[in-house]
Amino acid sequence: MVDIFDRLRKNPGPLGQFADYAEGYFVFPKLEGKIGPRMIFQGKEVIFWSANDYLGLCNHPEVLEADAKAAAEYGMFYPMGARAMSGETDQHQLLEKELADFVKMEAAYLLNFGYQGMVSTVDALTSRHDVIVYDSDAHACIVDGVRLHVGKSFMYRHNDLESLEKNLIRATKVAEASGGGILVITEGVFGMSGMQGKVKEITDLKDKYNFRLLVDDAHGFGTLGKTGAGAGEEQGCQDKIDVYFSTFAKSMAGFGAFIAGDADIIRILKYNLRSQIYAKSLTMPMVIGGRKRLELLRTRPEIKAKLWENVGKLQNGLKARGYNLGNTNTCVTPVFMKGTTVEATLLVKDLRENYGIFTSVVIYPVIPKGNILLRLIPTASHTDAEIDETLEAFDAISEKLSSGHYKKMEEEMNLVYKES
Amino acid sequence: MVDIFDRLRKNPGPLGQFADYAEGYFVFPKLEGKIGPRMIFQGKEVIFWSANDYLGLCNHPEVLEADAKAAAEYGMFYPMGARAMSGETDQHQLLEKELADFVKMEAAYLLNFGYQGMVSTVDALTSRHDVIVYDSDAHACIVDGVRLHVGKSFMYRHNDLESLEKNLIRATKVAEASGGGILVITEGVFGMSGMQGKVKEITDLKDKYNFRLLVDDAHGFGTLGKTGAGAGEEQGCQDKIDVYFSTFAKSMAGFGAFIAGDADIIRILKYNLRSQIYAKSLTMPMVIGGRKRLELLRTRPEIKAKLWENVGKLQNGLKARGYNLGNTNTCVTPVFMKGTTVEATLLVKDLRENYGIFTSVVIYPVIPKGNILLRLIPTASHTDAEIDETLEAFDAISEKLSSGHYKKMEEEMNLVYKES
Repeated sequence: MVDIFDRLRKNPGPLGQFADYAEGYFVFPKLEGKIGPRMIFQGKEVIFWSANDYLGLCNHPEVLEADAKAAAEYGMFYPMGARAMSGETDQHQLLEKELADFVKMEAAYLLNFGYQGMVSTVDALTSRHDVIVYDSDAHACIVDGVRLHVGKSFMYRHNDLESLEKNLIRATKVAEASGGGILVITEGVFGMSGMQGKVKEITDLKDKYNFRLLVDDAHGFGTLGKTGAGAGEEQGCQDKIDVYFSTFAKSMAGFGAFIAGDADIIRILKYNLRSQIYAKSLTMPMVIGGRKRLELLRTRPEIKAKLWENVGKLQNGLKARGYNLGNTNTCVTPVFMKGTTVEATLLVKDLRENYGIFTSVVIYPVIPKGNILLRLIPTASHTDAEIDETLEAFDAISEKLSSGHYKKMEEEMNLVYKES
Repeated sequence: MVDIFDRLRKNPGPLGQFADYAEGYFVFPKLEGKIGPRMIFQGKEVIFWSANDYLGLCNHPEVLEADAKAAAEYGMFYPMGARAMSGETDQHQLLEKELADFVKMEAAYLLNFGYQGMVSTVDALTSRHDVIVYDSDAHACIVDGVRLHVGKSFMYRHNDLESLEKNLIRATKVAEASGGGILVITEGVFGMSGMQGKVKEITDLKDKYNFRLLVDDAHGFGTLGKTGAGAGEEQGCQDKIDVYFSTFAKSMAGFGAFIAGDADIIRILKYNLRSQIYAKSLTMPMVIGGRKRLELLRTRPEIKAKLWENVGKLQNGLKARGYNLGNTNTCVTPVFMKGTTVEATLLVKDLRENYGIFTSVVIYPVIPKGNILLRLIPTASHTDAEIDETLEAFDAISEKLSSGHYKKMEEEMNLVYKES
């Protein structure tokens, strides 16, 4: 047998193995100053493209005022314990009513945190006889929910309806034998590729198969649909979504989350979500502050319009310059390039230090070897000048990449490394 | 096969089946007013014994000021995304340093929420070859962590060293065959019974068996030990705990949590905790507010002294009157009585409405049939008058219980029910 700590020290994991090299720069970077399009990274101002604050609400004066006022009145502890034990308030119920109305569902229930809320939602919806069918690009919280499931689960190829249907046929056979049901899980928007989940096409499959659909619309809520109700509204199938989930950590510029759906089902779920029954209610300042954010989503359509104006400028600008944005049809803006992992890190460093542009970077093993993905999240707060400056910088670094500039640096580094 | 929603509607779960009867009173009760020893329940003031705010910090003026100031400066969103992506700040690192010092460990790491933080800690510490050995009364978050484990796990009888040792022998055999290790999990204080976990005795078993120990000290942190460092300090074995966990939702009067231990292991964990890598960093007001709370824990020993003075008065008063408090050796004050489930609900209603005392009540199936557990959480804020009034009320209701008063009410209700 082994000692668990010895094993961890020998194998610190896929990300942990790069800790010494990457910490503070590529991972756990410290961004300073007010959250927004310009922040301070390592003492220098950068144009910042990694905040999921789509609508720029996190520094909206009305939001800050609501947060501060609620914190002054209630502190961060209110209301005490778990919702079911001692964590119920009128404010929680009001926000739920407003959220349900906003996403056009009968009822909503607040979750103290999105990650565990989703894990418990998957858990509470399914019994051991049920089959879960889920998208291969589903977020970690969905995957952890599926991991809790002791019955069968089938993963279908990302956003691939043919693969989904194949798995629905398999799942139906299993459910018929077990006497269970089927839960399909997709995201409204996939945060890496920026592709909307095919929610409409999935709900159309309900004519042929018997299943319930849970949609994680973290990136869709507030950004998609005429009123901002998300991917279901955008695709005209909101009423066919059985359980709708969104975090508050994107457009709502906060934390916590909610689920929405039929009133009787949401009520049953609130009695069965383990992470909610056995852990603290969402803190009051986020509930009161959440009501203010939702009010702004509802009453200030110009903020979402400005977001999409910026999305258009950035994405069209990148496309016009020949960049490969994959198949994004949302605000999420991925830029796919070709290069080694070392080239990727050199390019990102160059981009941050010499061009003052901070983006997230995704490399192997998250995406296939030889690929580099720079991910930009435009927000309503970015200015034309910031978009233009970013486009110019992209031209400069992609020119360097294709001309072998970073490759040469990599070779020189290897040479130095060999000689030393 | 079945429809998942039909199944849920037919079987709304162990708690959900009582929703119509219990909601708003026994479950999801609404407590109003400032959190403290006196709150408003259904329009009337009650003496409140269900807040885990042991040190009474939630309304401490310095705490409220720190929370409000931080919320005004940062709002509830700061710092953006996941800690590893864009959620790192100096304040997070400072609080971690202070927490590590306080619990006498090399390093600490903040968790965005306790429940999912514990789930991911269990998950990240173990590989499929490892064996988990855990207490049968472990909190739901530990159980969910164990549920994620695909290797073997053995549950030992609550706080039973003989049962633990039997399971360590089994686990050692499995680990020797699989090449894995062993993780033992206990709580520092069990929240229902108020019994301390036998942390010292468990760590002594390290002489005979090869395992690592994870301790969830939610109720011990801030209340036990000379300096408030928890159950390990109290029992003189803090240095033998491998991973120490505590929530901020009890003595720290907030939310979020932390783990602490050897610096290299904590660093590896921070790269492998899925709920932390893939979800938002702990919000800034709770970090800055957390530093203030910890400062009060460190510098105002008189608050903990007052807590224990109140614990002594309440527990000694109850014992002197002949009540059965089980084996509590912490602040958690369980009062065990005998009676049916209906008697329990009538008694609690009487206690709340006619005596103005609000306690939690635990009945079958959480504890064996025929038993009633009223659970009181004394805090540093309770007054002598509130303790005395509560003792008087307990005498009145227990007299009614033993004289068959509630039993008679139950029979009359049944009669009315049958006749109607």
